[in-house]
Amino acid sequence: MTNKIITLLTDFGEEDWFVGSMKGVIASICPAARTVDITHLIPHGDIRRGAFALRCSYSYFPRGTVHMAVVDPGVGSTRDILVVRGGGYIFIAPDNGLLSYILADLEDKTIHHATRKEFFLDKMSNTFHGRDIFAPLAAHLAGGLSSEQVGPVCGDPVILPQPICRPDGNNRWEVEIITTDRFGNCITSLPLEKMGDHLSETRPTGIGIILGKEDISLPLVKSYNAVEEWSPLAIRGSCDYLELAVNGGDAARQLSLQTGDKIKLKIEYKLN
Amino acid sequence: MTNKIITLLTDFGEEDWFVGSMKGVIASICPAARTVDITHLIPHGDIRRGAFALRCSYSYFPRGTVHMAVVDPGVGSTRDILVVRGGGYIFIAPDNGLLSYILADLEDKTIHHATRKEFFLDKMSNTFHGRDIFAPLAAHLAGGLSSEQVGPVCGDPVILPQPICRPDGNNRWEVEIITTDRFGNCITSLPLEKMGDHLSETRPTGIGIILGKEDISLPLVKSYNAVEEWSPLAIRGSCDYLELAVNGGDAARQLSLQTGDKIKLKIEYKLN
Amino acid sequence: MTNKIITLLTDFGEEDWFVGSMKGVIASICPAARTVDITHLIPHGDIRRGAFALRCSYSYFPRGTVHMAVVDPGVGSTRDILVVRGGGYIFIAPDNGLLSYILADLEDKTIHHATRKEFFLDKMSNTFHGRDIFAPLAAHLAGGLSSEQVGPVCGDPVILPQPICRPDGNNRWEVEIITTDRFGNCITSLPLEKMGDHLSETRPTGIGIILGKEDISLPLVKSYNAVEEWSPLAIRGSCDYLELAVNGGDAARQLSLQTGDKIKLKIEYKLN
Repeated sequence: MTNKIITLLTDFGEEDWFVGSMKGVIASICPAARTVDITHLIPHGDIRRGAFALRCSYSYFPRGTVHMAVVDPGVGSTRDILVVRGGGYIFIAPDNGLLSYILADLEDKTIHHATRKEFFLDKMSNTFHGRDIFAPLAAHLAGGLSSEQVGPVCGDPVILPQPICRPDGNNRWEVEIITTDRFGNCITSLPLEKMGDHLSETRPTGIGIILGKEDISLPLVKSYNAVEEWSPLAIRGSCDYLELAVNGGDAARQLSLQTGDKIKLKIEYKLN
Repeated sequence: MTNKIITLLTDFGEEDWFVGSMKGVIASICPAARTVDITHLIPHGDIRRGAFALRCSYSYFPRGTVHMAVVDPGVGSTRDILVVRGGGYIFIAPDNGLLSYILADLEDKTIHHATRKEFFLDKMSNTFHGRDIFAPLAAHLAGGLSSEQVGPVCGDPVILPQPICRPDGNNRWEVEIITTDRFGNCITSLPLEKMGDHLSETRPTGIGIILGKEDISLPLVKSYNAVEEWSPLAIRGSCDYLELAVNGGDAARQLSLQTGDKIKLKIEYKLN
Repeated sequence: MTNKIITLLTDFGEEDWFVGSMKGVIASICPAARTVDITHLIPHGDIRRGAFALRCSYSYFPRGTVHMAVVDPGVGSTRDILVVRGGGYIFIAPDNGLLSYILADLEDKTIHHATRKEFFLDKMSNTFHGRDIFAPLAAHLAGGLSSEQVGPVCGDPVILPQPICRPDGNNRWEVEIITTDRFGNCITSLPLEKMGDHLSETRPTGIGIILGKEDISLPLVKSYNAVEEWSPLAIRGSCDYLELAVNGGDAARQLSLQTGDKIKLKIEYKLN
């Protein structure tokens, strides 16, 4: 039980005292817990972006880790709070879709509404449940509280729609940009396992996309610098989705793509 | 004494090696201490903002925590360094007003000037006392050094003026914007206890303010989304002050308010 | 071996899940290791800036610390990975010059190419070697793996050119701006020991520089506020180089200087 990790993912930013206060609460309740920041720079209220960031990172932590996520535009209203146990982890988040991709990922899981106030701070604000509810709850769960004890079973958590990814015949797919990252890389919703690999009878060599009226073809490469500087490319991403990038540049800007954009792409294959 | 926490609050930013170097110094002197960042994004030299951030967060940490704050435009000059003990905590900061709100908060306290150089790094720069003085001092204090040992008693620490908050008759108050946060919420200097609550004979239901030539009335609500999206509101803040906000938006921008602005407000009450 | 520190220095930014994922990998492999962030805001692909930040901070950490640096525009290509042992520390970085200043600093050292895949994650992406190679390697090294075991000796690591610093006769120097920091301070390549100090027969009192067509003289002072607000100054910097600054302002902006700029300066001396 010692050295349990609590990860934090929020849209609280880093310029204020918000994250520090939560860590103070955690240290007060469960001194042995260690906190690890996933990020606090989720754009304000962007639940989908938070959901995706959590889905990309949670499984790299040791089993037993408590993942606490707070992107919570409904703070202070009647939205519920979820505690999910599955895959060896515990997740805590507002019931607003933030755990959608996690719930889709986990096979066996239990879901509870956290309602029992003895696990919250005594003095509770209307606007900072991260400090007053989520942090103490995470600390209690890291300290051994069972997720069954936090409140009743929840049968119908809020779920975001999954990103579109539809086969369109003849190696064509209709996909969307799930998100862009700090480098401007565009993560598409095409899972890598849909593409086949170098062991298949045919192997993918490039991606054709239509941008505006232009039809462009991006080579599918293994490193950004396999193409000329500032040239666009397609690459197998580290979150198991196809990504569009620019060597040394910002694909989102250069290709005018943003989160949520729908694009049609065609995988180009060569016989092995 | 193990697992003592040292919090760090500075205006050093996160793009350089400054914060990392301080943590290295701390780990070298007191390996058992854990550091927790409050924030390093206090605007350059903004002592008042740093003072408020510290005041909002310090009490959420376990007793015994060492709070180290460095917003220090006078680094290298003759300004003194304070070590304050009170409320179960130790505070270290330049003597420039950064501890003003803490000192006002603490009933019993001792204040010392840190002058004894054996607790600083041997090699000292002119420009980075965070690394060369504050960090080693914090590490020694976390490791058991008594605050009496750092130097002589200080009788007259530099104190910032308290934010204005004057009753103006007939439920009117003259207040100021203490600070704005990452979301654009405007924290006023009106303490929540001055407003009364739902248990009083009358309960507050809204806040009237004059902005430019306009007289506007903000409903006092319990959650941001209790009003229409983009609508302004008043809410009891998590730092025990009245806050002005906009649901899903940025009140500072939308209401053209900034830190230090003086405003007159009127609390609207209803009979219970 | 307990409580080993692993420092992280990258250009991964803080808005994504990248840094969190690496910490998850480290905690999974070496639960006793503590991670400390130097910075994750090195500008995208700016190897030289990363190299300098590491050189300014590494020696403040306890001996035994593992320093992991990833500024890696060649990720996924054939660039090698270095493990350097020296000065009581271990360094891990891509072989692209990021360790140049460290290698110049260390007298006794061993350099290896990390090639043995049993120390990487089983499932490896093309684009995120920070998570899949560097983090697990750092965790194994913190856990006791000897640097000799990671792969063959490397005889010719990639080395960046050292910043220019040439004496030009008559107390003149041709130097360059190594980097600027968060405050806009300009760190020149003139090492402090070249200037002499107050114990010498003559002591430096100011720095003359030519900016555009103007010849300006900056007083050499001990604190930023030794000059008027917004006035430029020269000061002995905390990384042992001469720095140009502006009291309360941004020297890089005000003097129109940026990283890599070459300037000629003249040290003005007074007889002691």
